[in-house]
Amino acid sequence: MSKASIPKGTRDFLPSEAKKRAYLFDTIKAVFESHGYDPIETPAMEHLQTLLGKYGEEGDRLIFKILKRGDKFKAALQSGNDFADQALRYDLTVPFARFVVQHRSDLSFPFKRYQMQPVWRADRPQKGRYREFYQCDVDCIGTESLHAEVELLQIIETVFDRLGLSGVEVRLNNRKILMALAQYLNAEERLIEMTVIIDKLDKIGLRKVCEELSSIGFADDQIKKLVDIITLTGNPSVLFESLTDTFAQIPDGLKGVEELQFLFDMAKALNIKGLKLDLSLARGLNYYTGAIFEVTHPDFKSSICGGGRYDDLTSLFGLEGMSGVGISFGADRIYDLLEQKGLFDQNTSASAQVLFANFGEQEVKYAQNIAAKLRAEGIACEVYLERVKMKKQFSYAHAKNIPHVLSIGSEEIGGALLPIKNMASGETQKLSLEAIISLLNSKNDH
Amino acid sequence: MSKASIPKGTRDFLPSEAKKRAYLFDTIKAVFESHGYDPIETPAMEHLQTLLGKYGEEGDRLIFKILKRGDKFKAALQSGNDFADQALRYDLTVPFARFVVQHRSDLSFPFKRYQMQPVWRADRPQKGRYREFYQCDVDCIGTESLHAEVELLQIIETVFDRLGLSGVEVRLNNRKILMALAQYLNAEERLIEMTVIIDKLDKIGLRKVCEELSSIGFADDQIKKLVDIITLTGNPSVLFESLTDTFAQIPDGLKGVEELQFLFDMAKALNIKGLKLDLSLARGLNYYTGAIFEVTHPDFKSSICGGGRYDDLTSLFGLEGMSGVGISFGADRIYDLLEQKGLFDQNTSASAQVLFANFGEQEVKYAQNIAAKLRAEGIACEVYLERVKMKKQFSYAHAKNIPHVLSIGSEEIGGALLPIKNMASGETQKLSLEAIISLLNSKNDH
Repeated sequence: MSKASIPKGTRDFLPSEAKKRAYLFDTIKAVFESHGYDPIETPAMEHLQTLLGKYGEEGDRLIFKILKRGDKFKAALQSGNDFADQALRYDLTVPFARFVVQHRSDLSFPFKRYQMQPVWRADRPQKGRYREFYQCDVDCIGTESLHAEVELLQIIETVFDRLGLSGVEVRLNNRKILMALAQYLNAEERLIEMTVIIDKLDKIGLRKVCEELSSIGFADDQIKKLVDIITLTGNPSVLFESLTDTFAQIPDGLKGVEELQFLFDMAKALNIKGLKLDLSLARGLNYYTGAIFEVTHPDFKSSICGGGRYDDLTSLFGLEGMSGVGISFGADRIYDLLEQKGLFDQNTSASAQVLFANFGEQEVKYAQNIAAKLRAEGIACEVYLERVKMKKQFSYAHAKNIPHVLSIGSEEIGGALLPIKNMASGETQKLSLEAIISLLNSKNDH
Repeated sequence: MSKASIPKGTRDFLPSEAKKRAYLFDTIKAVFESHGYDPIETPAMEHLQTLLGKYGEEGDRLIFKILKRGDKFKAALQSGNDFADQALRYDLTVPFARFVVQHRSDLSFPFKRYQMQPVWRADRPQKGRYREFYQCDVDCIGTESLHAEVELLQIIETVFDRLGLSGVEVRLNNRKILMALAQYLNAEERLIEMTVIIDKLDKIGLRKVCEELSSIGFADDQIKKLVDIITLTGNPSVLFESLTDTFAQIPDGLKGVEELQFLFDMAKALNIKGLKLDLSLARGLNYYTGAIFEVTHPDFKSSICGGGRYDDLTSLFGLEGMSGVGISFGADRIYDLLEQKGLFDQNTSASAQVLFANFGEQEVKYAQNIAAKLRAEGIACEVYLERVKMKKQFSYAHAKNIPHVLSIGSEEIGGALLPIKNMASGETQKLSLEAIISLLNSKNDH
C-alpha cells in the first residue's frame, strides 16, 4: 500500500483553491486577449541542452532532469554520466525564445503572445516558494517600438484593476541608464557585478550595497557618485533633466533617459497611474537591454510582476535582431496577496447554483428533467445522488456553498410551483419554473 | 548555440491551435461545472512509489522518472540504482485516488470533481500518440448511486452536442456481466486474461479472439458459449431478458443486468440518445467493477471518451469502501476529430476584433484612447505598434484574422466619424464610435 502524500514543494489544489486560481488566470488571460495577445503552449519537457547554461550556475543545478530509460540508461550507468537529455521547463522565457526561432516562418511579427503554464525549480521549498508554480508571461517580440512597453503598462494597470487590487506601484528604470552609470564611473567591465549588487538594495539595504561594491573594488568616490544617482527621487521630468546633464557625453544614458521619458509621457496621455521612476531598479537577469519594470504592493514583500526589454533573446538559438519586451505575472504571489486582502469574490467559491434534493426514484427522474432545463438556461445545478436524510443533503449544499435547494416531493411532480430554499436566509418560497430561472439567472449575472 | 527543437513525442501549440484547444477545454469544463463538478489540480510530480505498480509492468517502464540531485544522486551512483524517487504523473486516476485519501477530511462526499491536466508516457511516439497529452477526467466518488452513471451519460451527450459533433455512439457494458460470464464458463480464475482478450475484439477481430482464448486453454464449447453472449445484439430489453435467463443462478450476472437496465431506463426517461449495449465491451483496466462506457464516432478509429465504475480505487492508498465512477475525455483525439470534420468555429482563429492602423505618434496616442474605450466595452483590439507602410499593417491584420481595420489619420483626430474597413468584404464605412461599438459587439455575441 502506498502512502498518500506528495513531494515537498508541490501542492494539491482543492476545489475552493482551484476555483480561485481559475478566476485569477481567466482575469489575466482576458486582459491579454483584449490587447490582441494570442496564447501559445510549449511542452513541459525540453531538451536539456535548450535549458542548460541559460540561468547561470545555480539555475543549472536547480533544473529537474528526466532520467533516461532502457539502453540509454544502461549506457549512462556504464559511463557514470549523462543520465538525462531532457528536463522540465525552468521558466517560460527560454522556451519562448526557442519557440520563436523554431516557428518563425509561421508567425506574424510583431508577435504578441501570452503563455500561462507551470515551471519547475528544485529550489529549497519555503513559505511562498514552490517547486512547481505557474508563470503568466506576456511578450511582444519583433519590434523596437516603445508602444509595446506602453501596452504592457496598460495591461498591468487593467489586470490589477479588474482584480480589485488598489495601491499597486509600477517601478520603472532602463538598463541603458545602468550601462551609462557604469561608463560614468569608468567601471564598464563591472556592469554585470554592479547590476547584481544594486538589484539587492531592497533586500540588504543601502549600507550593505556600498560594502559589497567596495569589496569588489569600487573606490569611495565611485560609490558616492553611484549612490547619488540611484537614490535620486522626485518629479520624473526634473530627474530626467538632471540625468541628461550627468550623461551628456554618454549616448547610452541619453537614450535611456529618452526612452523613459517617452513612457512617462505616454502614461500621462493615456491616464496610466501608479508609475514610479526608480533608478535603483536593476533586475538580475542579464538579457534585459532597455526598459525594466517591477510591480510591488505595499502589503506584500516580493514583487508581483516584472519584466523588461531584451534585444537579443533569440540569439541563444541563432536568430539575431529580434528585439522584444515582456512581463511575467507571479500568479502564486498575486493569489496569496488577494487571499490576504480578502479580494476573491465570494462567488468563486460557489459551484452549482441550486441542489435538487433527492426524495426517491420518481422524484429524481422528474428533478433531472427540470435540472436539464435550468442547465439549458446556463444555470449550474445538481441533483443529490442518494436518497438519504434531508439533513445530510442540506449539509452537502452548505459545504459546497450551493445557495439554493429545490425540494421536489411527490406532490410537486407535474405541479406549477416548486419550493426553493435560500440557504443563506433559510427562507423557502414556492415559485414557478420561470420565476426560478429568472431568480437564478440574475445571480449569475452580477 | 542551442538548436531550436523539442523532444520527440512532445508538441508546441501555435496561437491558432492553442485557441482551438482553449475552446475545446472551455466547452468541456462548462458542461462539467453545469452539473456541479468542481475542479481540482494535482502536481505534475508524484512520489515514484505512488505510481509504480499501478499500471502494470509496461506502465512501470513508460513512467518518466525525475533524476535525483546532489548527495542523493551521488549515493545512487555509488549503489548503481534508485536514481529517482519522483516521477511525472502517468494518468489522472491514480493521483485522484491519492488526493481523495490524503484530503478526505476536507472534502464533501459524494465528491464530484473534474481535472484537466497533462500526463506523460514514454510510449513510442506515432500519429495521434504523444508523450505529453491532456486528460479531461470527471469522477464522482463516495456513492454507489447509479444516478452518478446517469449524470455522466448526460455529460457525454451535452459535451459532444455543444461541440457540434453528431453521430456519437456510447457503448455500454457492465463488468459484473463479464464476471458472471467467467463463472458461467467455469473460468472464474481466468477472468482477467479473458477480459484482456475480449478487449482486443475491435482491433484483432473475432477469429483471433477465439484463437487467443483457445491458446490460454479455453475449450471449444466454452469459447462458443462466450461468443454467443458477447456477440448478442438487438433490442436491449430483449437482451436483458435473455441474459437474466442465462445468469439465473449467478448473482453477479443478475446484478449487472439490473444495473444496465436501470441506465437504459433512465436514459429513456431523460431522453439521452446514442446509447448502445455492447456485451463485448471489456475495457482493459482492472479496477472497473460495474458499468463501463466507451464513446466512439464512425469517422474515428479510436474511442474518444471512456470510463466506468470502480469500487475500490482508493484502497491502493488504504481507504476502503469508496465506490465511484468516472470518465475521461480524450482531448487530443477529440481535437483531431473536430479538425477533421471542420467543426472548429471560425472565430476560434480570430484574436482582436479590430486593428488600429499606425499613422504616427499623435495618431497613435489618439487611437490608444479609442482602443481603451472599445476594451472597456469588452471588444478586443490592438494598435499596430510601428509606423510602417499600410500594406504591411493590413497584411498583419490579415495574418491574424483580425476582421476590421480602423484608420485614424490626422484629419480624424477629434472628429465624429472614423473609417473602418471590413477585411472580408474590403468595404470601408465612416462610423461614429457608438456605431462601431455596436457593430463589433454584435459580432462578439454570436
